[in-house]
Amino acid sequence: MRYSFKNDYSEGAHPRIIEALLKYNMSQEAGYGEDQFSKQAKNLIRNKINNPEASIFFLSGGTQTNLICISALLRPHEAVISAKTGHIVTNETGAIEAVGHKILEKETKDGKLKVEHIEAILNNHQLRPHVVKPRLVYISNATELGSLYNREELKRLYEYCNQKNLILFMDGARLGQALLSSDLSWEDCAQFTHTFYIGGTKNGALLGEALVFNSTRYSEDFDYILKQKGALLAKGRILGLQFLELFQDDLYIELARKAKEYAELIQEALIKKGIDFLSPTESNQIFPILNHHQIKKLEEKFEFYVWKNIDENRSAIRLITSWATQETEVKKLISLIEEF
Amino acid sequence: MRYSFKNDYSEGAHPRIIEALLKYNMSQEAGYGEDQFSKQAKNLIRNKINNPEASIFFLSGGTQTNLICISALLRPHEAVISAKTGHIVTNETGAIEAVGHKILEKETKDGKLKVEHIEAILNNHQLRPHVVKPRLVYISNATELGSLYNREELKRLYEYCNQKNLILFMDGARLGQALLSSDLSWEDCAQFTHTFYIGGTKNGALLGEALVFNSTRYSEDFDYILKQKGALLAKGRILGLQFLELFQDDLYIELARKAKEYAELIQEALIKKGIDFLSPTESNQIFPILNHHQIKKLEEKFEFYVWKNIDENRSAIRLITSWATQETEVKKLISLIEEF
Amino acid sequence: MRYSFKNDYSEGAHPRIIEALLKYNMSQEAGYGEDQFSKQAKNLIRNKINNPEASIFFLSGGTQTNLICISALLRPHEAVISAKTGHIVTNETGAIEAVGHKILEKETKDGKLKVEHIEAILNNHQLRPHVVKPRLVYISNATELGSLYNREELKRLYEYCNQKNLILFMDGARLGQALLSSDLSWEDCAQFTHTFYIGGTKNGALLGEALVFNSTRYSEDFDYILKQKGALLAKGRILGLQFLELFQDDLYIELARKAKEYAELIQEALIKKGIDFLSPTESNQIFPILNHHQIKKLEEKFEFYVWKNIDENRSAIRLITSWATQETEVKKLISLIEEF
Amino acid sequence: MRYSFKNDYSEGAHPRIIEALLKYNMSQEAGYGEDQFSKQAKNLIRNKINNPEASIFFLSGGTQTNLICISALLRPHEAVISAKTGHIVTNETGAIEAVGHKILEKETKDGKLKVEHIEAILNNHQLRPHVVKPRLVYISNATELGSLYNREELKRLYEYCNQKNLILFMDGARLGQALLSSDLSWEDCAQFTHTFYIGGTKNGALLGEALVFNSTRYSEDFDYILKQKGALLAKGRILGLQFLELFQDDLYIELARKAKEYAELIQEALIKKGIDFLSPTESNQIFPILNHHQIKKLEEKFEFYVWKNIDENRSAIRLITSWATQETEVKKLISLIEEF
Repeated sequence: MRYSFKNDYSEGAHPRIIEALLKYNMSQEAGYGEDQFSKQAKNLIRNKINNPEASIFFLSGGTQTNLICISALLRPHEAVISAKTGHIVTNETGAIEAVGHKILEKETKDGKLKVEHIEAILNNHQLRPHVVKPRLVYISNATELGSLYNREELKRLYEYCNQKNLILFMDGARLGQALLSSDLSWEDCAQFTHTFYIGGTKNGALLGEALVFNSTRYSEDFDYILKQKGALLAKGRILGLQFLELFQDDLYIELARKAKEYAELIQEALIKKGIDFLSPTESNQIFPILNHHQIKKLEEKFEFYVWKNIDENRSAIRLITSWATQETEVKKLISLIEEF
Repeated sequence: MRYSFKNDYSEGAHPRIIEALLKYNMSQEAGYGEDQFSKQAKNLIRNKINNPEASIFFLSGGTQTNLICISALLRPHEAVISAKTGHIVTNETGAIEAVGHKILEKETKDGKLKVEHIEAILNNHQLRPHVVKPRLVYISNATELGSLYNREELKRLYEYCNQKNLILFMDGARLGQALLSSDLSWEDCAQFTHTFYIGGTKNGALLGEALVFNSTRYSEDFDYILKQKGALLAKGRILGLQFLELFQDDLYIELARKAKEYAELIQEALIKKGIDFLSPTESNQIFPILNHHQIKKLEEKFEFYVWKNIDENRSAIRLITSWATQETEVKKLISLIEEF
Repeated sequence: MRYSFKNDYSEGAHPRIIEALLKYNMSQEAGYGEDQFSKQAKNLIRNKINNPEASIFFLSGGTQTNLICISALLRPHEAVISAKTGHIVTNETGAIEAVGHKILEKETKDGKLKVEHIEAILNNHQLRPHVVKPRLVYISNATELGSLYNREELKRLYEYCNQKNLILFMDGARLGQALLSSDLSWEDCAQFTHTFYIGGTKNGALLGEALVFNSTRYSEDFDYILKQKGALLAKGRILGLQFLELFQDDLYIELARKAKEYAELIQEALIKKGIDFLSPTESNQIFPILNHHQIKKLEEKFEFYVWKNIDENRSAIRLITSWATQETEVKKLISLIEEF
Repeated sequence: MRYSFKNDYSEGAHPRIIEALLKYNMSQEAGYGEDQFSKQAKNLIRNKINNPEASIFFLSGGTQTNLICISALLRPHEAVISAKTGHIVTNETGAIEAVGHKILEKETKDGKLKVEHIEAILNNHQLRPHVVKPRLVYISNATELGSLYNREELKRLYEYCNQKNLILFMDGARLGQALLSSDLSWEDCAQFTHTFYIGGTKNGALLGEALVFNSTRYSEDFDYILKQKGALLAKGRILGLQFLELFQDDLYIELARKAKEYAELIQEALIKKGIDFLSPTESNQIFPILNHHQIKKLEEKFEFYVWKNIDENRSAIRLITSWATQETEVKKLISLIEEF
């Protein structure tokens, strides 16, 4: 079997997480998220983001978190604004529409929404009541193209949203990468969004995302909706325990760092060979543009996605690293690149 | 902390499951349920129920399984028939209505639906198009009251459903208990329901339910809906691996047996003391009727639910055992009972 | 063809309404409810109920009004409380569930909800978040059984709802009957409900119900939802014009009176013959209990519903009168009754 | 008040329709669409389209028809393909998403979908189950830009849809214009779509659209869904009677013709003055490009929409004529144009 650089969820969990599951396996805990691990993990996160008012809930995956959060926040006629490349637009089987809400999509250069994009959509939705009412702005950070929002960009979006009575929701499936490689801090996430989530699945957990409402204004009765949509695990302890482990020291960021370091090694090797990139590498996702001969060579040893045709001879591929990436495999990959 | 007999999901997973997670932790697997563990586990289940045509999907919990399955099977005007005590009626925060379907509830003696109950509902829903169209019959086995359907009862329901063009769906959150303590076999589940699920969460797994469609007629495009409702885990391996462990020998039934044995020990002790029961004990749920002094005595050492007031002096309590129940604690409980 | 006492929507509209449609047919008006007739009609209603703050919308029918109003007022996990005989429970094809909300049904003696009924439901829905959150109380006045809420009863319900943070919604498909035959006034409807509707279809209009929100707190953005659910007519004028006609003098109540007078004539004749009734006659619906011979006799000349079997020999039938009922036919019916 | 060319629903109904309502006003009819007028009107339509198998339902408006039809035809994960200018995309407040379905929008030149557009969307939705499943193709004829599908174009779409297991649904809010001005016949509508509707509201009716399923395969149980969504009028007679009048001779097409003739007169006048058009005039919608001085001149006497800015000095306006347009007003408008 070839080694895979296809994604950052090919392996199980970081060994410390499995150990924690093992260690506390037989302790009796209250069900449905009322366990001690979940409570402690929530406190750790509240401290980390420096927001004692934050309401925090643990869910099982990204699509689930997006659809339930949006469903809880919007009334029937309210709509979501998203980049055309947003995960909710491209990869969630119409989950948002299935709970009743239209997504107003905007073409962007790099997967990042800007104030101008939102403004254009607001301007196009004035013909009340014949159009939906834009109400929630969905961004991903890191985005699906690997780009990042810096502090100033997030702040500007947040201020604009406040001014226009919009809710800013940040999908943090790969938030570790964003925090690691930009000037954005944990505190900024609490200060410059209304709600966001911290992705566990793609950064060392077996499963699990931590959804944070920065004000109780937005989380009212969320527990009911979590249960109603089938997301409240009887053994909520397995989510709590994982986030407890990820946040009791800086494990969450360390795992993101490991992924990033491997990505940088690979990128350097590519740059040395004069390879172009589809988009700048800001996180653990690399999009080099290779010719078909080069792609074939790599495919003999490795698995990855061919992402986009560039021209007759070349395509961009996507390589993703993670906390679980094996150093020896990275070296093998670099050797192949050096032979180009 | 007092020892809890509150439910069968207070602990983590059976040690063999944690070991399996540990053992295969770093193997790379395809995401979203396409992993090798899931494929193997599905084959084991197909063999066990002797239905090579079965379509099988792994989900994370009972409410999720119920709502997605029902949502996938029904058109907008179609309704569900359930006992008034059915889990979808009492404990799922309107999850079925939230995906658009009315539940037609029927009072029953013991939580079990009979042909007469269904017939009565069909007769009351003739005034097309002003009433919903009953289309799916939901039963739980074991029921929420601990009662069981035997082979003949299930067969009769199934035949009636076929005759009336109804879909029979069996919630098997505690299916292990049903199979262990009645004449119902794995094969019968495949033969006498259209779809059913095998509960993992309450019988040794960290999380996970295996939803079985006995004919592909009912599972068409189910993968889309699983994803749309947020139930398709990126690391589907953790569900597959658990069911692989539970089904590669008879671990699933063994764990149910362990729970049942403890329940029987407790029950014997109660019977010896002449204690009455709210309903006969057929599974790992016991409903003894105690006076308030007795309840207070037990509460000093143990946690459990006071289930129902009987009269001024007495209430029924619910005691649940599981694969994880500690023998020493069962003995302590029995000692207390003997002191009554 | 036999003359029908089946319901109060067998004919077209009161002649004054058709004349109004004819008279203003070619005047140009703004679309989607922004026409002059709708504006004037809303003002008349605001005056009649003495609530200048009321937000009023015209819809096409009862089921539509119920489902859109409830959909606009509730969040996903919130539920409706209704009598088991409520129209939304029995005759609307699961319309409320189809927009996502569970109805908590309560058995009543006469179709009328009382504080005790609501209290019992609240007490049974404490196990947050595993149960829905009761939030809206649905009553019909007149009820589906022809009974009426008097002023004191409505006031008590309203005060209880306020105390428990519940919304009181009154379905007034036959509100004319309620106002005519009880001590309830137009002003009371504004004072002792949060929202209610005035039924046109069953009281002289071609189609149309006027939905009144007694506070803008509840009507926020309702225009969007009205449009989204397909209820905003391009030619909203035809609804406005009808309510303008019904409310510019007391036509609405006069039409109810005409219906009631015929009902009373028939009732008297029945009483004279010693006929029993299924329920007391408070509105334009009469439920006499006849033997099968008597029913057969009436059926030779008239259409009506056989409503409920009473015993081997007798059934209750339902006779409904309306503004359109023909006096000569009432006399023929009475003659037949006198021959009993 | 200025005379309005804003739309084709500013007036009431064609006088023959009001007369019919008046004439049959007091006849007693069965409720909920079971009246004799509806039955006769359906027969007339079946004859007109030469499809004795057609299932026909009368609804109140376009948004309502679109959302209920689509809701009845699709499973939860199935999506609609539409031009970006489609009415369901731009002017229905997210009605389709509110019943759970994503619309896959495609930029077009003239508001008309072509096979290539659909093919491109199918190609982009291969990543099952992470994307929705395209299943229904929505077209409007005439389109929202006034363009028309000819027979060959519709036939090609239909054949492609059949080949790809897609449902072709034609929104005929302005179908009269399409039939009048292209080579498309009534029979073609039945032969080359799976379902379509015949718009009454914009062509002489007070309200009403006739939804036609060309095969019972698609209309199964539609009556339930019609009722559930609040669209089944108690006095269905008022819809039936109108379509009876529109179809008992060729009134429906005659009314479209009258609208078209006025449009042509205005267009000629514009052409004579060398005015350009935003899009070719194929129906009763004209989109001349005028300078701001010209627009101002017209605005002194007439109401219409300024549709789109063209450049600093010019905008396109939209003029719509109808069966109700007054000849004298058309002449006044032309006089003003001649003064340009």
